[in-house]
Amino acid sequence: MSKPVVDAAAWMERFGMLPPPGGTILCAVSGGRDSVCLLDYLWRLGQERGFSVAAAHLNHGMRPTAQRDEELVRRLCRQRDIPFYTEKVDVYALCDAWRLTVEETGRRARYEFLRRTAASIGAAFIATAHHREDQAETVLLQLLRGTGPQGLAGIPPVREGIIRPLLDTPRAAIDAYIAAHDLPYVTDETNLDTHYARNRLRLEIMPQLLTINPSAPAHICRTADILRAENDYLDAQAAALLPDTGTALPCHTLLSAPAALRPRMLRLLAERLPVGKKDFSAAHYRALEMLAQTGGTLSLPGGAAAVCRQGTLTLTVPDASRPEETPLHPGDNRVGAWHIRLSDTFSPDALAVRPGAWSARPWRREDGLTLPGSRGRRSLKRLLAERGVPPEQRDAVPVFCLAGQAAAVPGVGVDASAVPEQPGNTIYIQLF
Amino acid sequence: MSKPVVDAAAWMERFGMLPPPGGTILCAVSGGRDSVCLLDYLWRLGQERGFSVAAAHLNHGMRPTAQRDEELVRRLCRQRDIPFYTEKVDVYALCDAWRLTVEETGRRARYEFLRRTAASIGAAFIATAHHREDQAETVLLQLLRGTGPQGLAGIPPVREGIIRPLLDTPRAAIDAYIAAHDLPYVTDETNLDTHYARNRLRLEIMPQLLTINPSAPAHICRTADILRAENDYLDAQAAALLPDTGTALPCHTLLSAPAALRPRMLRLLAERLPVGKKDFSAAHYRALEMLAQTGGTLSLPGGAAAVCRQGTLTLTVPDASRPEETPLHPGDNRVGAWHIRLSDTFSPDALAVRPGAWSARPWRREDGLTLPGSRGRRSLKRLLAERGVPPEQRDAVPVFCLAGQAAAVPGVGVDASAVPEQPGNTIYIQLF
Repeated sequence: MSKPVVDAAAWMERFGMLPPPGGTILCAVSGGRDSVCLLDYLWRLGQERGFSVAAAHLNHGMRPTAQRDEELVRRLCRQRDIPFYTEKVDVYALCDAWRLTVEETGRRARYEFLRRTAASIGAAFIATAHHREDQAETVLLQLLRGTGPQGLAGIPPVREGIIRPLLDTPRAAIDAYIAAHDLPYVTDETNLDTHYARNRLRLEIMPQLLTINPSAPAHICRTADILRAENDYLDAQAAALLPDTGTALPCHTLLSAPAALRPRMLRLLAERLPVGKKDFSAAHYRALEMLAQTGGTLSLPGGAAAVCRQGTLTLTVPDASRPEETPLHPGDNRVGAWHIRLSDTFSPDALAVRPGAWSARPWRREDGLTLPGSRGRRSLKRLLAERGVPPEQRDAVPVFCLAGQAAAVPGVGVDASAVPEQPGNTIYIQLF
Repeated sequence: MSKPVVDAAAWMERFGMLPPPGGTILCAVSGGRDSVCLLDYLWRLGQERGFSVAAAHLNHGMRPTAQRDEELVRRLCRQRDIPFYTEKVDVYALCDAWRLTVEETGRRARYEFLRRTAASIGAAFIATAHHREDQAETVLLQLLRGTGPQGLAGIPPVREGIIRPLLDTPRAAIDAYIAAHDLPYVTDETNLDTHYARNRLRLEIMPQLLTINPSAPAHICRTADILRAENDYLDAQAAALLPDTGTALPCHTLLSAPAALRPRMLRLLAERLPVGKKDFSAAHYRALEMLAQTGGTLSLPGGAAAVCRQGTLTLTVPDASRPEETPLHPGDNRVGAWHIRLSDTFSPDALAVRPGAWSARPWRREDGLTLPGSRGRRSLKRLLAERGVPPEQRDAVPVFCLAGQAAAVPGVGVDASAVPEQPGNTIYIQLF
């Protein structure tokens, strides 16, 4: 073969995606052309570079073709002697339990399965098959949605153990690879109707943008790379000017900082609010900067407020907007905005727990869970992050406590200490 | 009237666009809806805030309707007692002389006229009518073209005396203003066929992007604002790490700088090359960074090269790629890549100069011209910048010298010392 049609090794080296000798990459494989290409490519590269590849496939059970997809990936793996891990999940049932869209539920279930599988086989990385056009679409969508420089950084090549080896590879190269190696793949017909905005962008708008500049995806990816590095640098600079903890900041620290860093300092400070910085906009950061000069108070999104007094700017969340820890009684409970049902009747979307003094409250920084079968206690913050709950949405998830200790969280699981001891002696907690 | 349909005063205050008391803004008015709105708005605001407005209209003489446009602006000004300045220019003739596209020629001629007019009436600022959608289109085009974070900063609200009071105003507000005040305007039919990429973006792609997010232009403008501030900050940080002059840099200075600043330091260094940094890409800056670690030499775009030796990284341009100063003889001359004709026959696209010892060479940092009627000598760098020649294209313009002194530059003009004394005793220099 002449020049390889997919050549991601330099990209992988650049971002430290190559596992240590003898290490394993767990490759997420839906069976679509991108992930089939990724699996085969990593498998070949692994033979050259001395690492192993395993495959993980979550059967979403949402389409009649789901079983066909699973079989295709299984066969690909068998032919190559690649360890294959699969699980079935009922996404629709989870949707109800997690109160999320089908799409978001599928994504979380998938990442949860990948993390669990990677941990169980000791994989160094989880690889997903996002490619250059995915990245370009993401950057454009974020630009349209106004997420600021953070959003323009796009999909990170590496984050929290997840690597994107093909992120700089054009889709055309993937197609050529599939053809050159005569690889079988499935077509996910839902790509044509779900993800409305993204599909419109992909199918209708992108082809037009390419007529303006055929290299647009490459240019957008390169710009995202640069912005990502600059963004990290600016965040580090801004963070270094903040106190280590808390949401109070001396006004002179803010006002003596370079103007370009001030909104970023305020953004990082707002992220420390228990309600996060959801709905904060550039105008809010400008108003906060003014407040630091004039003194006074300011209402902020999410029920937060800012006070500037005696040379200190403090962001606060009035207690009223975060419900207190509230005991749960059998039947329907109301805690803050949550409707919580405690029942002794089985329900597929409920958390099954042992009986006891249960209560509900918002998450706290110190919360953690020891999930059954896991290797120890992990912070709830981390567990939520792994399930795709962004910081500003953490307060939307109630924490159920047993005798005052965080013990069960919808969408995350039940602490080992709170799982029912015998089937007969179980109660069920659910959001409704 | 209730809430004003155009309300740009806060934006103008934020970016320091309001002239000092008694000052004047020279408003560029084509006669189209945006500039008619800007003129009327600034005129009203000036009455409130104590500044004056004057209007400038360059008659491009390119369309049969050009005279109608000039008359419309003249009438608008007469009704409001606004001083009106106009000039005619033959853009097609200038195109040939300047060797530029019609569009670029029109732009340069316009800015040259605006600068000259502003200087002659002592205007504090020149205002142009770019609005929010113009800004969003610019940012998107730059993203597609891969100009990096610099390009995403879009059109600056203020730069070198030019202000854009409507840059954060949506086009819909301008339309409403035109309707509310029953203002006459002309429609520039060339907007529908020139600027191919921009018009496709405006007419075909933007409406689709708006279906994904109707606030996209506002979001894009806000992101551009943030990126502009961050970009300036990062440039200042990178510049502070460079030596004051020259294109040599100690390797340890580069390698000990934060990773995010290194490409920027190298970009700023490359901009100091006489050939500029045209065609340099992110890959070149990465290669230069590697070179600083390994030592050696590297070829760069535009005939430039990099040498890393004894702990110093130096960017150079081999002399061969910049032609020497070369005497010009009557008839056709070749200097570097330029074809230069010296003739005693009038030609509309030639520079008319007095006879003497003429030569040609690339520009030098110390070059300057005293243009007839101007108030003194100005640096050629500045004059070229005002005519829209970016730094990396300065070398594309020859400097004609009289007795070794820069005395005439195509597209800029002829030094007062070199203008012909009598019509009969004139020679003509032109590029062909």
